[in-house]
Amino acid sequence: MLTADYYINGILQKDRVVLSKAITIIESTKPEDNLLAEKIIQACLQTNRSSRRIGITGAPGAGKSTFINAFGKLLLEEKNSIAVLAIDPSSTISRGSILGDKTRMEDISNHPGCYIRPTASSSTMGGVARKTRETITLCETFGFDYIFIETVGVGQSETMVKNMVDLFLLLLLPNSGDELQGIKRGIMEMADMVIIHKSDKANEAAAKTAAAQIKLALHLLAPNEKNWTIPVMNVSSLEHTGLEECRQKLDSYFLQMENSGFLSHNRTHQQIHALEEHVIELLKSKLHSDHGILQLKTELEQRIIRREMDVSSAAKVLSEKLLR
Amino acid sequence: MLTADYYINGILQKDRVVLSKAITIIESTKPEDNLLAEKIIQACLQTNRSSRRIGITGAPGAGKSTFINAFGKLLLEEKNSIAVLAIDPSSTISRGSILGDKTRMEDISNHPGCYIRPTASSSTMGGVARKTRETITLCETFGFDYIFIETVGVGQSETMVKNMVDLFLLLLLPNSGDELQGIKRGIMEMADMVIIHKSDKANEAAAKTAAAQIKLALHLLAPNEKNWTIPVMNVSSLEHTGLEECRQKLDSYFLQMENSGFLSHNRTHQQIHALEEHVIELLKSKLHSDHGILQLKTELEQRIIRREMDVSSAAKVLSEKLLR
Repeated sequence: MLTADYYINGILQKDRVVLSKAITIIESTKPEDNLLAEKIIQACLQTNRSSRRIGITGAPGAGKSTFINAFGKLLLEEKNSIAVLAIDPSSTISRGSILGDKTRMEDISNHPGCYIRPTASSSTMGGVARKTRETITLCETFGFDYIFIETVGVGQSETMVKNMVDLFLLLLLPNSGDELQGIKRGIMEMADMVIIHKSDKANEAAAKTAAAQIKLALHLLAPNEKNWTIPVMNVSSLEHTGLEECRQKLDSYFLQMENSGFLSHNRTHQQIHALEEHVIELLKSKLHSDHGILQLKTELEQRIIRREMDVSSAAKVLSEKLLR
Repeated sequence: MLTADYYINGILQKDRVVLSKAITIIESTKPEDNLLAEKIIQACLQTNRSSRRIGITGAPGAGKSTFINAFGKLLLEEKNSIAVLAIDPSSTISRGSILGDKTRMEDISNHPGCYIRPTASSSTMGGVARKTRETITLCETFGFDYIFIETVGVGQSETMVKNMVDLFLLLLLPNSGDELQGIKRGIMEMADMVIIHKSDKANEAAAKTAAAQIKLALHLLAPNEKNWTIPVMNVSSLEHTGLEECRQKLDSYFLQMENSGFLSHNRTHQQIHALEEHVIELLKSKLHSDHGILQLKTELEQRIIRREMDVSSAAKVLSEKLLR
């Protein structure tokens, strides 16, 4: 078994193979790996390195991977390095989708400045959150300038991703009237930038209309606390249009948010939120794994079903046993 | 202070004033009321009485109160008794909406067989869940034939209500294309019956089209485990059309679900779910109220922010303190 130092040094020396191995340890469920993972993360935090963290969401078919490919290419050409983490907690089996991602990112996937990694999705939302958060820490220590976190905009994963990024980007399609139905309500409220993707020449009229509608919809929302006007941009990754504007808006955002102190304030807030979330996760796992607790839980369930006990009283007994 | 016996006897003697007082005790946050509430609930459970529990959801403006008024009138004319509980956790201030509800239910609100009660919404979702569950128990002991639980279909409250009813009814409007956007995705999947409300004579064409579209959409969903074909009905509460069909479908549902054993199976499942939910709620409240825990939490937050500690390790320390 390799030591924590091996991993930390490898990551600091920008060794991708070591980075991948370290992420695998983070994702491992073996107890001996957990201790090692903790040591690696602790050491990584000491390096105090940080990247621009960008979340990207959109309904299936919105072209998230294609966009990251085109936009990432632009960043790589400017000598930036980028990491792409793809999360899809809804599909626990379709490891194949990652392969699909890689082919849709063919312009960047073999670039020396680009690192692409799917996240293990075969666990609870809380588990995925912890692993993604720690993978971000490893990637920051490695020294990537940008970290993209891609997620499907239909489940609970966007809230999770929103809680770990600096900028949240929503991809919509030109025929938004119908398309919006695929996007959950609150998601529009989370966006820091909206891209009407696939705004190809052939779709120009629809794309412009969609952008105008979305702008109107955003206008109706309450202003955000960070005093930022959410830009709505027409982008075609296929025809390479709108990407430069997107690049500029991204810089404006980070500049403004750094100056206002929002970025650091937001990260602090995110960490405090993560702590609470993780504690609840640990308590839940105890509730589902501890033999004595499970036995008591089954007994209490039986008593509830036989109407000998009410749910609140049973919950009190169970939580007291847990907290003792 | 009155005894538990006073409340139980009053409820069994169908005294509405006592029922209302008992619900207020359930909703109270005073420690001395909590103990009394527990005693009342325990005793109520012993009576083993049960009602048909029906959840009703729909976007604001779908006419939920108007529907309950018209449909409730039908049930009252058949000599049934009904209780209506209205939940709106999103509005903690607008107690005024209840007054609105009562005026929209003017045909039934003064009927001796009808009892209308808004739920206190000035607490967490978990708190509302417990209070609503216990209010249902009180109403069942009182002996209502039907309990309607009305909720706004835009928050998290539908999942909560779905978890405490036998039948979940979704109200949509004829111009469903636009209206559906107000309804969260998963909600359609929760429905046991769908009503295209405000299917007035003047809207006939749109209403028929909407019903056909919803039927198609439901057809695309995976079949439910209870082997029930979800009916989609055109109803106008204003013109009193479709209510009889709705009444018949309701009976078919309960008949089929009683015969298949689904009803009792579902209630058992709901209670087990409620137990877990309530335990998590109690653990969270300890996390937010215990002085020692809060102190440790603040310390850990500071260490995380100073990068002296990672979130996972801090969460472990905090959960161990909680569980000790």
